[in-house]
Amino acid sequence: MASFDSPLLLGIDGGGSKCRAILFHPNEGVMGTGLSGAANPVNGLEAAQSAIVDACRQALQAAGLSADLLSRCVAGAGLAGVNLPSCFAAMSEWQHPFAELHLTTDLHIACLGAHGREDGAIMITGTGSCGFIDYQGQQTIVGGHGFPQGDKGSGAWYGLMAVQRALEASDGLAPETTIHAGLARVLGSDEPLGWVEQLAGQRSTAYARLASVVFEAAEQGDDVALAIRHEGADYINRLARQLLDAGAPRLSLLGGLGPLVIPHLNDEIQAALSPAQATPEMGAVYFAQDQRQSGVHKEQG
Amino acid sequence: MASFDSPLLLGIDGGGSKCRAILFHPNEGVMGTGLSGAANPVNGLEAAQSAIVDACRQALQAAGLSADLLSRCVAGAGLAGVNLPSCFAAMSEWQHPFAELHLTTDLHIACLGAHGREDGAIMITGTGSCGFIDYQGQQTIVGGHGFPQGDKGSGAWYGLMAVQRALEASDGLAPETTIHAGLARVLGSDEPLGWVEQLAGQRSTAYARLASVVFEAAEQGDDVALAIRHEGADYINRLARQLLDAGAPRLSLLGGLGPLVIPHLNDEIQAALSPAQATPEMGAVYFAQDQRQSGVHKEQG
Repeated sequence: MASFDSPLLLGIDGGGSKCRAILFHPNEGVMGTGLSGAANPVNGLEAAQSAIVDACRQALQAAGLSADLLSRCVAGAGLAGVNLPSCFAAMSEWQHPFAELHLTTDLHIACLGAHGREDGAIMITGTGSCGFIDYQGQQTIVGGHGFPQGDKGSGAWYGLMAVQRALEASDGLAPETTIHAGLARVLGSDEPLGWVEQLAGQRSTAYARLASVVFEAAEQGDDVALAIRHEGADYINRLARQLLDAGAPRLSLLGGLGPLVIPHLNDEIQAALSPAQATPEMGAVYFAQDQRQSGVHKEQG
Repeated sequence: MASFDSPLLLGIDGGGSKCRAILFHPNEGVMGTGLSGAANPVNGLEAAQSAIVDACRQALQAAGLSADLLSRCVAGAGLAGVNLPSCFAAMSEWQHPFAELHLTTDLHIACLGAHGREDGAIMITGTGSCGFIDYQGQQTIVGGHGFPQGDKGSGAWYGLMAVQRALEASDGLAPETTIHAGLARVLGSDEPLGWVEQLAGQRSTAYARLASVVFEAAEQGDDVALAIRHEGADYINRLARQLLDAGAPRLSLLGGLGPLVIPHLNDEIQAALSPAQATPEMGAVYFAQDQRQSGVHKEQG
């Protein structure tokens, strides 16, 4: 069995659609990675825990190590939803398989990664949307709030807007839009009733996979799609302006929707964006290291 | 045990927040009523079936009859969601306790009741919203589609708009609004984080109970609330115009939000509205009678 003079670190990024993990050692660098399903505890505590363990086992296996070593790893996890006190409490009670588990938000680890542990701010536009600033020891979330009540400008928001507008058009209550054809293709049905059957009771991820339909229709000059794209970009512009005004020395836009969104932001906001220096999983490793150094860590009982 | 020369009829109105039932006999009129919880099969098949049976037992008991008589009753049920083929199929497979069960939508029975079995159209603004027209043998649904992708102008839509706007304001990304104070009162928390915890993963009913906050803030002249109220009323105006243009000889606006919504519709739409002649439960009785007369009924196997 492998032996190391300082502990193995697991960096975990758990979001609404997937969970990534890396195995890291200061002398070895990234030794392995893992990828599993949704790990937002708000949408299912046990599913999130199971996805975390799955991704971490994969990372160990990818490094050629036994999954038994989980119990000797120090894990840092950034999870969507743990800014909610009830969610943080529930996750803290988890009888996890790690030597230590240090919990924070997915935003915090993304920010730590993006700016190499220095002060800065991030915006995320993926399944959800959110702003976060880590500046002079103060961490503040701006926006977010989840779907459908918040997360404006996110993939789920774009998807919901697409469905809303196309349904209104199909009822003859709003202008026709080529979004209809895009939804028909992605959802495999030309019938609005079929869309509703697929979407009834579904969560944000089901809507987020429809976001690209809006951008494609906008590229074709569809007025309805252009208006949605403008409304989403306007929100991200305002979010960016607030983070910059709050003093963020660096600002990155992360998340799968970034490449689609960035070209439509204001010029001054586009100019203010910097690329991320490291991944959120690496940010989770930084977080675990920082927590150990400050002596604030929770040993598994 | 009571004996009747024609069968006892049960009229059932099952919606997203409650289920009403009446026991009716042609010679006796309405003999008893019952009220139970949500009966939208899309949000839970077994819960809906249980609510239906509960409301019907209550109606029998209120008439001084034994619940055992369920097996001799001919039931007509109008249920939210059964316009979706998968939902209709699932409900049709129910091993129900009635002699017969005739299924249709909540919209159809509401329309049959509102216009005394004659042609006409209805709009519903309650937890959800929808238009429906029954004209020259053709029944057409306009709007609806469920929350959050459809149901514009409904209680759930108003509640969602209230939360969205108040959250954006709390982030400093949109104008302040007195909706915040209203939500704080109804949700028992001044903290947006507390609202999000209560609403995370909740369905339309949780948002619908926030609708009145918008109307109260609008009465106080709040610009954000006035804009939401206008957007909702504008949708109902367009829905009404389409139903009238389709030939509806009579139009009624039903649902718990009606008294709040009607004063803000266009004058011509307000003038075109007629009061409902009977309840949706009575419409369900009409439906069961019509199905029996036309010989289209499903005996319980």
